[in-house]
Amino acid sequence: MNSIMLQEMLRGFFKEDIGERDVTSEVLFQEEEKGTGTFLAKENGVFVGQQVIEEAFGMLDSHAAVTLYKKDGERMEKGEVIGTVEGRMRALLGAERVSLNIIQRLSGIATLTSEAVSTLASDHTKVCDTRKTTPGLRMLEKYAVTCGGGYNHRFGLYDGVMIKDNHIEFAGSITEAVKRVREKIGHMIKIEVETETLAQVQEAVEARADVIMFDNRTPEEIKDYIQHVPKHIITEASGGINLRNIASYRETGVDYISLGFLTHSARALDISFNVGTKGV
Amino acid sequence: MNSIMLQEMLRGFFKEDIGERDVTSEVLFQEEEKGTGTFLAKENGVFVGQQVIEEAFGMLDSHAAVTLYKKDGERMEKGEVIGTVEGRMRALLGAERVSLNIIQRLSGIATLTSEAVSTLASDHTKVCDTRKTTPGLRMLEKYAVTCGGGYNHRFGLYDGVMIKDNHIEFAGSITEAVKRVREKIGHMIKIEVETETLAQVQEAVEARADVIMFDNRTPEEIKDYIQHVPKHIITEASGGINLRNIASYRETGVDYISLGFLTHSARALDISFNVGTKGV
Amino acid sequence: MNSIMLQEMLRGFFKEDIGERDVTSEVLFQEEEKGTGTFLAKENGVFVGQQVIEEAFGMLDSHAAVTLYKKDGERMEKGEVIGTVEGRMRALLGAERVSLNIIQRLSGIATLTSEAVSTLASDHTKVCDTRKTTPGLRMLEKYAVTCGGGYNHRFGLYDGVMIKDNHIEFAGSITEAVKRVREKIGHMIKIEVETETLAQVQEAVEARADVIMFDNRTPEEIKDYIQHVPKHIITEASGGINLRNIASYRETGVDYISLGFLTHSARALDISFNVGTKGV
Amino acid sequence: MNSIMLQEMLRGFFKEDIGERDVTSEVLFQEEEKGTGTFLAKENGVFVGQQVIEEAFGMLDSHAAVTLYKKDGERMEKGEVIGTVEGRMRALLGAERVSLNIIQRLSGIATLTSEAVSTLASDHTKVCDTRKTTPGLRMLEKYAVTCGGGYNHRFGLYDGVMIKDNHIEFAGSITEAVKRVREKIGHMIKIEVETETLAQVQEAVEARADVIMFDNRTPEEIKDYIQHVPKHIITEASGGINLRNIASYRETGVDYISLGFLTHSARALDISFNVGTKGV
Amino acid sequence: MNSIMLQEMLRGFFKEDIGERDVTSEVLFQEEEKGTGTFLAKENGVFVGQQVIEEAFGMLDSHAAVTLYKKDGERMEKGEVIGTVEGRMRALLGAERVSLNIIQRLSGIATLTSEAVSTLASDHTKVCDTRKTTPGLRMLEKYAVTCGGGYNHRFGLYDGVMIKDNHIEFAGSITEAVKRVREKIGHMIKIEVETETLAQVQEAVEARADVIMFDNRTPEEIKDYIQHVPKHIITEASGGINLRNIASYRETGVDYISLGFLTHSARALDISFNVGTKGV
Amino acid sequence: MNSIMLQEMLRGFFKEDIGERDVTSEVLFQEEEKGTGTFLAKENGVFVGQQVIEEAFGMLDSHAAVTLYKKDGERMEKGEVIGTVEGRMRALLGAERVSLNIIQRLSGIATLTSEAVSTLASDHTKVCDTRKTTPGLRMLEKYAVTCGGGYNHRFGLYDGVMIKDNHIEFAGSITEAVKRVREKIGHMIKIEVETETLAQVQEAVEARADVIMFDNRTPEEIKDYIQHVPKHIITEASGGINLRNIASYRETGVDYISLGFLTHSARALDISFNVGTKGV
Repeated sequence: MNSIMLQEMLRGFFKEDIGERDVTSEVLFQEEEKGTGTFLAKENGVFVGQQVIEEAFGMLDSHAAVTLYKKDGERMEKGEVIGTVEGRMRALLGAERVSLNIIQRLSGIATLTSEAVSTLASDHTKVCDTRKTTPGLRMLEKYAVTCGGGYNHRFGLYDGVMIKDNHIEFAGSITEAVKRVREKIGHMIKIEVETETLAQVQEAVEARADVIMFDNRTPEEIKDYIQHVPKHIITEASGGINLRNIASYRETGVDYISLGFLTHSARALDISFNVGTKGV
Repeated sequence: MNSIMLQEMLRGFFKEDIGERDVTSEVLFQEEEKGTGTFLAKENGVFVGQQVIEEAFGMLDSHAAVTLYKKDGERMEKGEVIGTVEGRMRALLGAERVSLNIIQRLSGIATLTSEAVSTLASDHTKVCDTRKTTPGLRMLEKYAVTCGGGYNHRFGLYDGVMIKDNHIEFAGSITEAVKRVREKIGHMIKIEVETETLAQVQEAVEARADVIMFDNRTPEEIKDYIQHVPKHIITEASGGINLRNIASYRETGVDYISLGFLTHSARALDISFNVGTKGV
Repeated sequence: MNSIMLQEMLRGFFKEDIGERDVTSEVLFQEEEKGTGTFLAKENGVFVGQQVIEEAFGMLDSHAAVTLYKKDGERMEKGEVIGTVEGRMRALLGAERVSLNIIQRLSGIATLTSEAVSTLASDHTKVCDTRKTTPGLRMLEKYAVTCGGGYNHRFGLYDGVMIKDNHIEFAGSITEAVKRVREKIGHMIKIEVETETLAQVQEAVEARADVIMFDNRTPEEIKDYIQHVPKHIITEASGGINLRNIASYRETGVDYISLGFLTHSARALDISFNVGTKGV
Repeated sequence: MNSIMLQEMLRGFFKEDIGERDVTSEVLFQEEEKGTGTFLAKENGVFVGQQVIEEAFGMLDSHAAVTLYKKDGERMEKGEVIGTVEGRMRALLGAERVSLNIIQRLSGIATLTSEAVSTLASDHTKVCDTRKTTPGLRMLEKYAVTCGGGYNHRFGLYDGVMIKDNHIEFAGSITEAVKRVREKIGHMIKIEVETETLAQVQEAVEARADVIMFDNRTPEEIKDYIQHVPKHIITEASGGINLRNIASYRETGVDYISLGFLTHSARALDISFNVGTKGV
Repeated sequence: MNSIMLQEMLRGFFKEDIGERDVTSEVLFQEEEKGTGTFLAKENGVFVGQQVIEEAFGMLDSHAAVTLYKKDGERMEKGEVIGTVEGRMRALLGAERVSLNIIQRLSGIATLTSEAVSTLASDHTKVCDTRKTTPGLRMLEKYAVTCGGGYNHRFGLYDGVMIKDNHIEFAGSITEAVKRVREKIGHMIKIEVETETLAQVQEAVEARADVIMFDNRTPEEIKDYIQHVPKHIITEASGGINLRNIASYRETGVDYISLGFLTHSARALDISFNVGTKGV
Repeated sequence: MNSIMLQEMLRGFFKEDIGERDVTSEVLFQEEEKGTGTFLAKENGVFVGQQVIEEAFGMLDSHAAVTLYKKDGERMEKGEVIGTVEGRMRALLGAERVSLNIIQRLSGIATLTSEAVSTLASDHTKVCDTRKTTPGLRMLEKYAVTCGGGYNHRFGLYDGVMIKDNHIEFAGSITEAVKRVREKIGHMIKIEVETETLAQVQEAVEARADVIMFDNRTPEEIKDYIQHVPKHIITEASGGINLRNIASYRETGVDYISLGFLTHSARALDISFNVGTKGV
């Protein structure tokens, strides 16, 4: 992760949450009053949040001391202490909600990804994300997917070509669309083509697409189509796949399954942050 | 909503998703090629997104024509057309993912809020949100809660006092904490006190808190405690309340139930955007 | 105060004042040349500026050593040394004007507030500010008011309802305006109603406004009106009140007097910053 | 004025004042409800605010119609209508406070400058400003000074050399300081030297300073010193000059008198903005 | 190009060049005075600048009328009129330098790229850029390369893997480095490996790199190495190639030649902008 | 240089180059892996980059240790080590390209300026820059010109008056244009007038311009014109002057020669940065 981007995000988030001042803590705590906060897992899952916690608390108290017992991607059990932060009380309470809102969400995404991977239970097929991320948080959410054992699809419209139905319609054919794109783009950009029918798959193969997506296809269709795709072309299944039906794609032989729900519908994992002034 | 803040958000989101250029559409569509996109409800729910759609497409194509058949807060049924956008193809495809990512999330929050309200089914008790929102999206998400029939709790640490356990511990007592705060803050800020025991409730009442929160209390405890709170003090139940148990709070007489899951664990509502070049 | 917002402000102010470079000091002082600057009170008043001085000089010289003999809100007498800064000459001269421009203004506001409070000389009635602050400096100026013994009214249009004549006119009546607002807003937001006549005061009382403002009323009118307002509703006098007539409001029993001039017409308090290279 | 900078400032000011939403007007006014606001002079003075009013209201309502009867720098009498704005009610009330806060301040500065100029009543000597402006508003405040008949001193540390006592002390002498600066800076930058004694004035003349400042000198001293300064070198009086004593500098023959109070201690001029829904 | 990013850049550039105000034109031209400016080619080359010119002048005068006779990538001959802008004089002179500084640079890059392509004179081998662009202008400069007939290499560290000598050294071998990267990155990212020796090329082939770069190799070495690279792996020559020796790479059969000088050492193409008030 | 502006620039440049993450080094290097990078001159020239290198590497690794053997403006010979940076591998590789892109460009400008100065070989006439700088980099590029022995012309439209042909045409005459400007601007701003004919020069002299520019004049014309300009008025030659013909201006007696090519057509100086993990 780019720490400069993370710092900018956090500055924005703190302005959103703290505004001009924390009207409670600035009255009740003296500037220099210190305390300790403890991150605690309230349910099982995969932890994500090291860099966020370090940057967030350091931003409000440059002397805050962060100690973490979990690394990103490690499992945590309900009741486990994730880590502690020692620092000024105002900073601990000022950074609490923002840091929790982020790490609960990221840990939720990693945990859900991990579930998808273990439900799929495939040696070959990998799980990947989509662009269906929370606006403003893509860097963080895509990182969380990798912490859960998933892979990143393209980050945006800029780092990968995806030829969809309306592109094909406008260009006239898959063949023509791929040709036009290849004439213009550089050699570091991959070209993926969305397909629905076997004829489209075959056309995409002949057009030498780098990646072929089977859009909203059943496992059976994919098993069939994939026989017409040479090994060096990567295949991807997408659309309508969820935790309940992902196992049925295990035998399709597809290389990647992309799952929008990993990021657009993950629920926050329950993590608490308990702050006390005792013993510091 | 502050349109200046919305525009800033959208500019950030478009930079995140489009980056330097849409590497597919800039090759395949001419600058001036036009098309029509249609927003379609893929499941039942409450729509939120008017201002987002208008600002987002207008930002990429100042001549884009947006027609919406739903207002924020209106119900939509699976299969219903929500609205259409006519404009340049590059702008339609460039704004598609960002606008969908936002309105699916906001509609998801409004729909979940609406479910909470109808499950609670109370004439008296209202549902409200928390600060457990997605960092960077608080303005939008809190707006979505109101579209679903819910109410907004404080927006941040700046617009309401919330005296929690560690504040009380440090000040010595609820009485002392409220007194100190009241001596310092202005008359437009309300003071809420978190309580767990009846003794704390009674102390908060005597300290003349504006709002008393029953933190992680059962419906029975709340029914009991609330008898010690005069009518002009607002009461709030918080902690551990979800769609499965919310109905059990119907008879407690509490004024507000705050629900973190409305924003931290809403899943995206399925809405599609189909773009075609035909007939334009 | 939110230090992240203060730092952003200061960065903007330094870009405004220094531009691309300090064309004098970059020629005349070597990078590493050091000196000491002394803040001196040139007239009596209330000091405000701790955090500003620390952040400002630290921003241009991370090794600058700031020693302050006054805390925010303390009185200073003409001729007193407020504090010193040791650091690189370029940083001392680069931060001089920006820091003086801020602390002179803030100390001016605190001093004027303090005068208003002592002229009013009331055990009951408090002095508060308005939204008539310098654009871009509201956080700082409202903080300065509290340092002078005043209180903060709402910070903006977002953290308190204020129902004015044109709102009432459009809604039809105070009763209707308050009702509509209460149906929509959350429980942490207070509702204030501007009134001019006794009938309006009585209507606002019946509508259960949280705060009733007497707009441009004489002390006599207020004394009269206030008898119709129950104790638990806060009262505020506003409009046309200045240092010359504020004492006449002492016996009205009003809770708050809001004074726009505290922020819109405070003059800068005279504070100097003398920099020398000797003895360092 | 640079309109791009003005727009950025206004965006910041609106975020400061409106925050996430205008919690009163968004409830009480429908999106499309229209009205008219009238700017009215409540006291005599010099108007400044054309561009601010146009940009500010246009930013919240792109269809707002602004009609102004005064140009920047024109006098207005108490009771005169300055102009009107027709537009959406929410925009009128949303832009009211920010626009008033700016134009009251700017008109206050222009009015004070105009008073200084007329009190000085000199055909030869001009009044100018300093860097003692409100942080973040320098562009606007320096513009207001020119509207009141004053002139702008340098805008910042970047567009003019000012050699002060500590520069001289460090360089060893005025001669040496001017020499070092002239060796380094380009030909478009003027060099001003602060002087206190006749010897310093003479040294500055021999060093061929472009501008010589008489720092905290009496009119008599200046009359004396100025005889040693050739006509092509510009002279400036600075320090301790106010409305009460400025006339005593009329006969000194000095070219410029710089006055910090024009910007650091101007009070806001009373201008009101009355909004009505009638007759629109 | 992402117009939102272009607009942000231009706002920054105008703040840099205009600062608080154009001190000459704001005095000499009235607000509403209009004129016409004409872009003229002063030497032969490839034009780039459509979108820049339209956005830049529109930003300072929303009614400015831009008429261009050249499209991006078209050749212009010395003396040809490229286009005209009609608008307010202050806007024409305010946008002149910024727009010229950009389009001269971009046209210079496109012209140089075009020279490289025609000097290479290959049907097979393409010319591409590097990350050696001007900081802050990468989007524009990479676009200019495509206008000159070149191709874009990766845009940054985020959209393509490049395994260099120190990566290899640390991983232990090319094989190991590629393996580790492939285990972690998604399927839309290509992997390029820098090689210097035949052994390295062979190792990269076996590791199934997507792209193999011959770093600082002679045409003869490349001709030799390339025989060991299967057709589906893309090859790139890089390092020490310039206009004088590029033709010697014509027969190597390499797919791409990357040229840092296209962006780091292009000189500005001479284009003038002549503004007149006549005949408008 | 204003370090706050430099830091902002660098943050923008790192976001441009690194994006969301360095996809290669984040896989291949552990967080804490350290290394050393060495800046090496690959050709002779003038070094510029101290502050850039320190700020850039410090931004990605606050513990990076920078040791430089060259100061800004010092000559470096091909093969000389300029300095080293010890720090985390990810930071070294992350800051490499951005820092090189800047210091190669700046050193290129300083080297070219130095060539211009030595080719001119005049004791009297100085070389200066123009506003033909790279948008976004003016502060850095103008600094580089001074490192090469040149001088800075005005930084933008805000810090110096330049009366050009279209200003003169609109005002009616040089006399009138200078008069109007002088009536409005302050005493710290210099007025330069562009002239082409002797008559214009004479008119500018009588109008008491501070600086007279001879626009696109031959050395002979300048020698002639300059005799009509009194010593205290600064003269400047501009237009069509390059390294091949600059020596012919040596005997003209002009004070400054402004050269656009110093910044718009400097090529990058070859400097390398070699990173190794050995011996750290």
